[in-house]
Amino acid sequence: MIEPVKLDVFSGAVASEPLYLEDLSPGQKLSFGDYHVTREEIIDFASRYDPQPFHLDDAAAAANPLLGKLCASGMHTMSMSHLLQMRGFAKVGINPLAGAGMDELRLYRPVFPGDTIHSEIEITQTREIRSKADRGLLDYLTTVLNQHGEKVMTYRSTLFMARRSPRN
Amino acid sequence: MIEPVKLDVFSGAVASEPLYLEDLSPGQKLSFGDYHVTREEIIDFASRYDPQPFHLDDAAAAANPLLGKLCASGMHTMSMSHLLQMRGFAKVGINPLAGAGMDELRLYRPVFPGDTIHSEIEITQTREIRSKADRGLLDYLTTVLNQHGEKVMTYRSTLFMARRSPRN
Repeated sequence: MIEPVKLDVFSGAVASEPLYLEDLSPGQKLSFGDYHVTREEIIDFASRYDPQPFHLDDAAAAANPLLGKLCASGMHTMSMSHLLQMRGFAKVGINPLAGAGMDELRLYRPVFPGDTIHSEIEITQTREIRSKADRGLLDYLTTVLNQHGEKVMTYRSTLFMARRSPRN
Repeated sequence: MIEPVKLDVFSGAVASEPLYLEDLSPGQKLSFGDYHVTREEIIDFASRYDPQPFHLDDAAAAANPLLGKLCASGMHTMSMSHLLQMRGFAKVGINPLAGAGMDELRLYRPVFPGDTIHSEIEITQTREIRSKADRGLLDYLTTVLNQHGEKVMTYRSTLFMARRSPRN
C-alpha cells in the first residue's frame, strides 16, 4: 500500500480508500515529487512573507557570505515540501485531522531558481492520546532534496490522525 | 534599543544602525504586530501550499472534530509570523545572515478569517561557531497570539548573525 517510489503528486487520482492510524507504522517510507522552483515564485513568496534582501535582490544575495546567490526563503522551501506531502498523502489515502507540531528543522543548503526539489518521509512513530479514543498522533521525518540528490532541509512533523476503530 | 513594546512593523523607518551578535543577549524581548488575516489570503495560501479541505472549504472544516471552522494552514500562520519578525527585525537593526533551523513548533489553536495576530520573541541564547570568527548563532523563542491574547503557536528559531568584531 505504501511504496518507497517517488510519486508524481501532480497527476493521477487520489486514493479512494482512506488510511487510518492503525495502517501506519515506523519505517514506512514515501517519496513525493517534483516541484520546480522558479525565480518568480521565490520573489513572490519572499515579498509576501520573508522580505530579506537575499531572497529578493541578486546584488544583496551575492554579498551574503553564506548564500552567494538569490535563493528561496526557508519558509518557502518548507511550504513547497508541505504541498508535495499533502498532495502525496491524499494520493495514498492519508487524510490528517490537523497538524500538531514540528521539530528539528535544519537548513543545509539554499534552494536556487531553477532547482527541482522533492520530499521524502519516513514514519518514525504512531502514538495514542490518553484522553482521545478516536484519534492518535503520527510522527514522521522529512528530508527535502534537490535535483542533485543533495539534502536541502530536514524536519520532523506530528499530525493528528483518525483511528479506524476507537480505542477501548 | 530593544523595548518590550509592540512595534507596528508596517509603518515608519527601518533602523539606520545595524545590531550585531554582541548587541543581543538572553532575556531581551520584542513584540511585532499586527497582521490581519483574511479569508481570501487563507484560501490563497492553502491553494498554493496546503490544500487540505479544512483550509479551503467551510463544510469540510465544519465536519473536522478538531477545527470546526475554516482556518489558516499552520504553514501560513508561521509565514505571517515570519513576516512580522523580519520586518520588525529590520526596524530595530537585526539583519540575519541566514536561517539555520527551527525547533519545538507547537500549534495550540486555529487562526480564523478575521483574526489579527502578532508575534512576540524572547532571545534565549547567543552562540559562537567554532570554525567561524565573523559570525555566530542567535536563538529565540516565538509566541504567536491572536486578538484575544490567546496563544496560537510557539516555536524556537536559530539564525546566523554577523559579529561586529571578529572573534580572536
